[in-house]
Amino acid sequence: MSQVEVRTKHLLGLKDLDADEIISILDRAAYWENHPVKVSNMMSGRFVANMFFENSTRTRFSFELAEKRLGAEVLNFSAAVSSVEKGESIYDTVKTLESMGIDAGVIRIKPVGVLQEVAKKITVPLINAGDGNNEHPTQALLDLYTMRKQFGEIRGLTVSIIGDVQHSRVARSNLWALQKLGAHVQFCAPDVMKAPDLDAYAPYVTIEEAVQADVVMMLRVQLERHEIGIMKSADEYRKAYGLTVQRAAAMKPHAIIMHPAPVNRNVEIDDELVEHEKSKIFTQISHGVPIRMAVIERALS
Amino acid sequence: MSQVEVRTKHLLGLKDLDADEIISILDRAAYWENHPVKVSNMMSGRFVANMFFENSTRTRFSFELAEKRLGAEVLNFSAAVSSVEKGESIYDTVKTLESMGIDAGVIRIKPVGVLQEVAKKITVPLINAGDGNNEHPTQALLDLYTMRKQFGEIRGLTVSIIGDVQHSRVARSNLWALQKLGAHVQFCAPDVMKAPDLDAYAPYVTIEEAVQADVVMMLRVQLERHEIGIMKSADEYRKAYGLTVQRAAAMKPHAIIMHPAPVNRNVEIDDELVEHEKSKIFTQISHGVPIRMAVIERALS
Amino acid sequence: MSQVEVRTKHLLGLKDLDADEIISILDRAAYWENHPVKVSNMMSGRFVANMFFENSTRTRFSFELAEKRLGAEVLNFSAAVSSVEKGESIYDTVKTLESMGIDAGVIRIKPVGVLQEVAKKITVPLINAGDGNNEHPTQALLDLYTMRKQFGEIRGLTVSIIGDVQHSRVARSNLWALQKLGAHVQFCAPDVMKAPDLDAYAPYVTIEEAVQADVVMMLRVQLERHEIGIMKSADEYRKAYGLTVQRAAAMKPHAIIMHPAPVNRNVEIDDELVEHEKSKIFTQISHGVPIRMAVIERALS
Repeated sequence: MSQVEVRTKHLLGLKDLDADEIISILDRAAYWENHPVKVSNMMSGRFVANMFFENSTRTRFSFELAEKRLGAEVLNFSAAVSSVEKGESIYDTVKTLESMGIDAGVIRIKPVGVLQEVAKKITVPLINAGDGNNEHPTQALLDLYTMRKQFGEIRGLTVSIIGDVQHSRVARSNLWALQKLGAHVQFCAPDVMKAPDLDAYAPYVTIEEAVQADVVMMLRVQLERHEIGIMKSADEYRKAYGLTVQRAAAMKPHAIIMHPAPVNRNVEIDDELVEHEKSKIFTQISHGVPIRMAVIERALS
Repeated sequence: MSQVEVRTKHLLGLKDLDADEIISILDRAAYWENHPVKVSNMMSGRFVANMFFENSTRTRFSFELAEKRLGAEVLNFSAAVSSVEKGESIYDTVKTLESMGIDAGVIRIKPVGVLQEVAKKITVPLINAGDGNNEHPTQALLDLYTMRKQFGEIRGLTVSIIGDVQHSRVARSNLWALQKLGAHVQFCAPDVMKAPDLDAYAPYVTIEEAVQADVVMMLRVQLERHEIGIMKSADEYRKAYGLTVQRAAAMKPHAIIMHPAPVNRNVEIDDELVEHEKSKIFTQISHGVPIRMAVIERALS
Repeated sequence: MSQVEVRTKHLLGLKDLDADEIISILDRAAYWENHPVKVSNMMSGRFVANMFFENSTRTRFSFELAEKRLGAEVLNFSAAVSSVEKGESIYDTVKTLESMGIDAGVIRIKPVGVLQEVAKKITVPLINAGDGNNEHPTQALLDLYTMRKQFGEIRGLTVSIIGDVQHSRVARSNLWALQKLGAHVQFCAPDVMKAPDLDAYAPYVTIEEAVQADVVMMLRVQLERHEIGIMKSADEYRKAYGLTVQRAAAMKPHAIIMHPAPVNRNVEIDDELVEHEKSKIFTQISHGVPIRMAVIERALS
């Protein structure tokens, strides 16, 4: 197998993926969403390991549902119950599972750059389920899927990404993919949450401008990541950058609200908006399963 | 589907369940206990999520065995490895799993009242696997099953529930169901462990009277829950309210010992009595699987 | 079933296993290694519980893969999410799972002697996945399998076991089994890591002599287990007892490096040697799955 072929089997991020490949994943996810099968036997006898070096109920569940619907055998671990505690390196853990005969691995990990290093030395396909603030490709794919389903196509859409851009892998994966597919991306964030590495790629707008977009994508804020004093409280954040009921009322009639979840109710988004008719938050979640089915199928085929 | 139909699919507690419904669950459990199948394909392709916001090996295992014997696909999480850590609300977690397409959820949870609130807004059936000191319906159902199997019928039995009634969901679920089925329930507890909310429903008797019942049901005590000084030590508790070998010798010839487990050996029950011929403790556990098969089947059908 | 038959179904250690039984497990593992099936239906409908009272990602994964390849249903728990926290005894937990109807149990546990006590009172077969510093039979079986595959037979081989012999269940299980099969075992360790209980069974040699063996088996050191001052640092340990690149160069041309993993790179073994052509470390791991298939099959048949 050539180096290029090996690389196409991993899914480490969307930055290096062609628009065509992105679209083919979205198309395949549409097939699965419309396919009535509860559990297929397509991946029967294939073993997928979900390796969560950083905990996440929702993402692991979504992958596990996708894997089981494809008929694969699933093995889970989270760092909290792993020998990583004993100082074992992440590479050694992944190499160990590869040696045991798994067919694919789904990895969530904190340090940036480690996944790329590991992937170079591993031959089973690896799927990035979120690595630090770098990428979260399946989240962005399900976001794209939701937008395409809503608007018919992504080309020409204006998408505002609002909040802690600096720490957000969701923002980065969406940025790379949306631009490849012809959308206009703009950020909105307080200075301390801006990402200098992305300055060349998208402009910052005010919150008033941001809510005028076709897609208003709120990011989860983790106020504890930021220095005390700069952003004093959740309430202060809400007033300055939150999607309040008042701001939502100023949105365009056809525009939608998105959020990667879990939400901080009444911080980045008002409680009343989470299940508002404009909100696609739980719809996004429901799209996660067919997207991950498409991604795992791609990895294993 | 009407509101009433939706409500009948949840199993939140026994207080609001008809005697007929309780009996039909017991009857269906009897079918499963006598049915030789190891794994059925009845629930093939159905996904059940075990959501344990409070840890419990035994209850989760019992549900998981029941689900797998029915042929369902099982997803587990416990709070310790969940994004609940990130402050996500319980409702949002359940709603998220519902959006992903699960067919039923089994929930254990600490705060009382939350499950009822969540169930109102969720359409997939939810099964209570223990919520605070409120209810633990499947435990009481397997207790009823054990009594009915032992004595032929529950009507007319005297059942003593002994120990920390105040903090016990097992006591409450048994109280509601036993009275519906015509048993006489009496409590025995030190003052600090009495439950004022239950005063109207069952009398308190002395430990000497309590061991004269047909069923002597001991509760697990958690001494750390009570103020120091009131009940000074495990040994003092044992002397005052424990089922000692001496007290067991005073039990009626046909009477049985029950306990929801795990037991504190030599605190609420003497070590020698746990596997005594009068004890049904491990028999109760074995009945948990057919009871939960019946309950899950009811939820999914 | 006679007491003897019951005992043969457990696999608590290799000390009490006949050479013939060891060989028959190795032979059956060879069958599974060469058998192309991904998932068999041989153990369909049988339930195996992996009860890890001490965490281990790699061992639990290896067992889980083996169980699922045999078609068994798998239930997992690790102590961190178990009611053992609530003070439940290990016996009560195992007895509980037996009462629920599991067909076999795999147990990892810290205190020595508990597993043997529990096994006497339990009728479902139990497999030791590592108990304190006593035994780790499946690890030694996969080590034997690796040696036999490499050298054709074990009789006549010289095997050096180097490192923290005192705390090593891997050293003990290998010692008992290797001697039964006719290998010559020698230890190498600093005084503080020597095992007085094993003095009668194998000699200690210097590190220079040790690396002259056919098999150079390094043990994982856990320096935190030893008094400060005796072995001041990882670097000091490496210099005195580690398998350095320099020492590996002195190995015989046909000799191999083994390690139970996870390795401490640059402590007991140099980083460059882990995937060196002489190293069988990841090969050992790959042999774990067929060995455990053979062991579970033996337990369930």
